[in-house]
Amino acid sequence: MKTLITNAYVLDMVGDTPNIQKNDILINDNIIEKIDKDIKIEEDCEKINAKNMLIMPGLVNTHTHAAMSIFRGYKADQKLMDWLENAIFPVEDKLVPEDIYWNSYLSFLEMIKSGTTTCNDMYFGMEKSIEAIEATGIRAVIGWTITDEAINGKLEKTKAFAKKYNVEGSRIKIYVAPNSPDSCSPETIELCVDIAKELGTGIHIHLAETVEEDTFVKERYDKSSTEYLADLGVFDVPVILANGVYISERDLEILKNHHLQGGIAHNPISNCKLSSGICDVVNLRKNGINVGLGTDGIGSTTTLDMFEEMKTAAYLQKVNTMEPTSITAYDILKMATIEGAKVLGLDKEIGTIEVGKKADIIFIKTDKIHLCPENDVCANIVYSANGADVAKVMIDGKIVMQNRKMTNLDEKEAMRKVKKIAKRLCK
Amino acid sequence: MKTLITNAYVLDMVGDTPNIQKNDILINDNIIEKIDKDIKIEEDCEKINAKNMLIMPGLVNTHTHAAMSIFRGYKADQKLMDWLENAIFPVEDKLVPEDIYWNSYLSFLEMIKSGTTTCNDMYFGMEKSIEAIEATGIRAVIGWTITDEAINGKLEKTKAFAKKYNVEGSRIKIYVAPNSPDSCSPETIELCVDIAKELGTGIHIHLAETVEEDTFVKERYDKSSTEYLADLGVFDVPVILANGVYISERDLEILKNHHLQGGIAHNPISNCKLSSGICDVVNLRKNGINVGLGTDGIGSTTTLDMFEEMKTAAYLQKVNTMEPTSITAYDILKMATIEGAKVLGLDKEIGTIEVGKKADIIFIKTDKIHLCPENDVCANIVYSANGADVAKVMIDGKIVMQNRKMTNLDEKEAMRKVKKIAKRLCK
Repeated sequence: MKTLITNAYVLDMVGDTPNIQKNDILINDNIIEKIDKDIKIEEDCEKINAKNMLIMPGLVNTHTHAAMSIFRGYKADQKLMDWLENAIFPVEDKLVPEDIYWNSYLSFLEMIKSGTTTCNDMYFGMEKSIEAIEATGIRAVIGWTITDEAINGKLEKTKAFAKKYNVEGSRIKIYVAPNSPDSCSPETIELCVDIAKELGTGIHIHLAETVEEDTFVKERYDKSSTEYLADLGVFDVPVILANGVYISERDLEILKNHHLQGGIAHNPISNCKLSSGICDVVNLRKNGINVGLGTDGIGSTTTLDMFEEMKTAAYLQKVNTMEPTSITAYDILKMATIEGAKVLGLDKEIGTIEVGKKADIIFIKTDKIHLCPENDVCANIVYSANGADVAKVMIDGKIVMQNRKMTNLDEKEAMRKVKKIAKRLCK
Repeated sequence: MKTLITNAYVLDMVGDTPNIQKNDILINDNIIEKIDKDIKIEEDCEKINAKNMLIMPGLVNTHTHAAMSIFRGYKADQKLMDWLENAIFPVEDKLVPEDIYWNSYLSFLEMIKSGTTTCNDMYFGMEKSIEAIEATGIRAVIGWTITDEAINGKLEKTKAFAKKYNVEGSRIKIYVAPNSPDSCSPETIELCVDIAKELGTGIHIHLAETVEEDTFVKERYDKSSTEYLADLGVFDVPVILANGVYISERDLEILKNHHLQGGIAHNPISNCKLSSGICDVVNLRKNGINVGLGTDGIGSTTTLDMFEEMKTAAYLQKVNTMEPTSITAYDILKMATIEGAKVLGLDKEIGTIEVGKKADIIFIKTDKIHLCPENDVCANIVYSANGADVAKVMIDGKIVMQNRKMTNLDEKEAMRKVKKIAKRLCK
C-alpha cells in the first residue's frame, strides 16, 4: 500500500542548515519512495493532506526507562539517594510483569503523542516492555538492565531477544545494557562487551552522571568512569552513553581516540532535576562526538515530551557557555533527530526525511497563536512548540496518532491501568 | 450575575503547603463569594461543571513586552547587542500604533490561552497596548518605557493614564517604567520616583540583567545597579525589578533593609537564551524577597507560556544550587501565582482562590496521558503540564477562553494581522 502526503512543508533535517521545501512525499509501505513537487500516481493510495502542517522526522529519545511512568511526580523534589532508596527501589521490588507492560505502554503513548517515534529503553522485565512496544507501534532500542547480581540469567535473556529481534526490518533492536560504572564490576562489563561483540550489537550504559559516581569510581579503580569503560573495551563496540555530565578533557581525548561509534544521550531535564550538573554538549559536539537528547525515566523528568528536552538543552548550553550563539535551534533539532539516530546506530534507517529511509514522520500544526509569525520555523519549533502541537504521527509507514488521539488504542484504559498500579504501590 | 463552578478540585494556593479540596465555587459578578461543598443557590446562575479539571488561580506573568510578538524567532541565536542593534531596534523604529495594537493583542491571546490571567507589560505606544488589554480581557499592570530621551512627554502620558486607570475596580494599573540603570540618568530616575509617589503607584524597571550592565554602572557611578537605584529612592516606592541576575550579598542587604515592597520578576528563559546568567532565586526567597516569574518579550523567549517558565525556573535553581530540595513544585506554583501578585502589588485582589478575591481562575484538564498517574498534583502541573492543558480561563469573573478557543475573539484575524506586520518589517 502506498501513501501520498500532499501540501507538506518538509523540514528534512538532512543538511548543515535548515532546508524547508513545499513537497509531496510518496511512501511505499514503510519506506519513503519519492519526494517531489506534485507527485501523481495512478494506483490506489491513501492520501494525507498536510495543509498548515510542518512535516519533519520523528523525534528520537535516546535514553529512557519507560516502565517508570507510575513514578510521575512521586516523592518529587528529594535528594537522589533518599528518593531512590526510600521511594523508587521499594516500589520497583514489587512490580509484577503486568505492571511493567502497562507502565511502559503509557510511556510509549506519551512519547508518540508528543512526537517521539523512536526511543532507547533500559529496564528489567524486558519481555513485557517488548510487548508494549509491539502494541503501541513505537520504534525502539531496548536493553535489559544488568548489574552484578544474577548477571547470567539477564545476559541469556538479552541473547535470546537479540536473536529474535536484531533482524532486517524489525522495529526493535536489542542492546546489551550494563547499568553504570559504579554498579558493574570489571567482570560484568567485560562479559557485556563480549556478548555485544558476539551479537553484533552495542552497549547502552549510564556514564558520568553524578559527582558521587565520579568519586566512587576514582576511589575504587583510580580512574575516571570514562577511562574505566575504555580499559574494559566498551568503546570498541557501538555505545549509547547516557548523561556524560562529568567528561574531562582527558576523557574526551579517550572518546575521540576510539572514533566513538554511537555517542552521548544527553538528558538535560533529569540532570537539572536531580542536581547532577550540566553536560558540556557544545564542547562534545565541537569535538565530533554525537549527542542525542533523552528524557530519562518519568520518575526523574516527570514528562517525556522531547520538545521540553529540546528547550532545556538549548537554555542550559547558552547559559553554561554564556554565549547565545554556542548552539542554535537547528543544532538542537539535529540532536533530537538525525544525531540521536546516530547515537542509536539507526541513522541509515531514520532521523531524516530522505528517499530510502523509514517513514517515521511527525506533522506539526503551525497555524497557532504561539507559532505566529513564522520568522524562523526552527526557532518556533524548538523554543515555542510543545508536544501538544503534534497533530499526527507516522511510524514505519503507519499513522499511529491522529488529531491528538491514538488511532487504534484505548488511552483511557491505559490510564485506568496505570492509576490502579500507582494506587497499589505508590503510597 | 452569579456563576457556580461544581465538581472542582481546587488548588487554592493559600497556605505554605498545597491544599487541594473538592469544592464548589460561587462567583458573584467578578468576586469569589463562597467556596464550599455542594453549594445550592436558588437564583438563576451560570453553571460550570469542572469534572476532570484542576482549578487554580490564573498565572501571573510579572515581566513582558507584549508588543514584541512579531519578533518571535526573529534572528534567533545571536549575541544580545548584535541582535538588538541589527535586528530589533531598526524594526521597532518603524512600528506604527496599529502594529503595537495587533502585536500586543496576539501576545495577550497567547498568554490567556496558556493560563496567564495577569501580566506586567512595558513598552512604548501604550495607548494601543491598553486598547489591546481592554479588547482581550486580560488583567495588566503597564508602564511606558522611559529612557533619557523625550522623558517629559512620556511622563505626562503615564500620569494621564494613571489618573484614568488607577481606580477601584479597574483591570488595568499604571506603573512608572524607567528602562534600566544603564539607560536612565539619576535625574530621569528621580523624576520617575517623584511621579510614582505623586500617583501613589510603583516603579517597574530592569535591574542587574547582565554583566555588561553591572560593569557599565560600576564604571560610571562607582556602585552596583542596586546601590544606584537605592540611592535614588527607587526602593521607597513599590517596585517590580525585572531580572536581578547580578545581586550581590551587599545588594541583598540593601533590598532587605528597605523592606522591599514588590519584588523581583525572574525571567529564567530569557536569562538563559540571552546568556545573561542565573538569578539566585533560592537565596533571594530565603531572605524574604518576593520573586515572581516572567516571560520577558517574545523576541527573547519565543514563548509566553508560563508553564515553560515554571519548569525552567525549577530546573535552573536545582542545578545552580546542586540541591534538588532547594525549590519545590509548590514553591514554583507560588511564584507563578500569589508571589507574582505580591511583586505586582495585587495580592489583595488576585493570586489565590479565596473568598473576596477577584475571580481569575484557570481550569486544567487532568485526564491526560502525560498527567497520569497523579501521585503529586503540583509536580504534575509544574513538571509535566503545559499551556495546552489549560481548557478554560476566567478573568474578572468572565470566561474568556473555553475548549482552547477565545470565546468572543477572532484568533485567525489576529494571526493574519501580525503575519502581515512581520512580512512588512521583519526581513
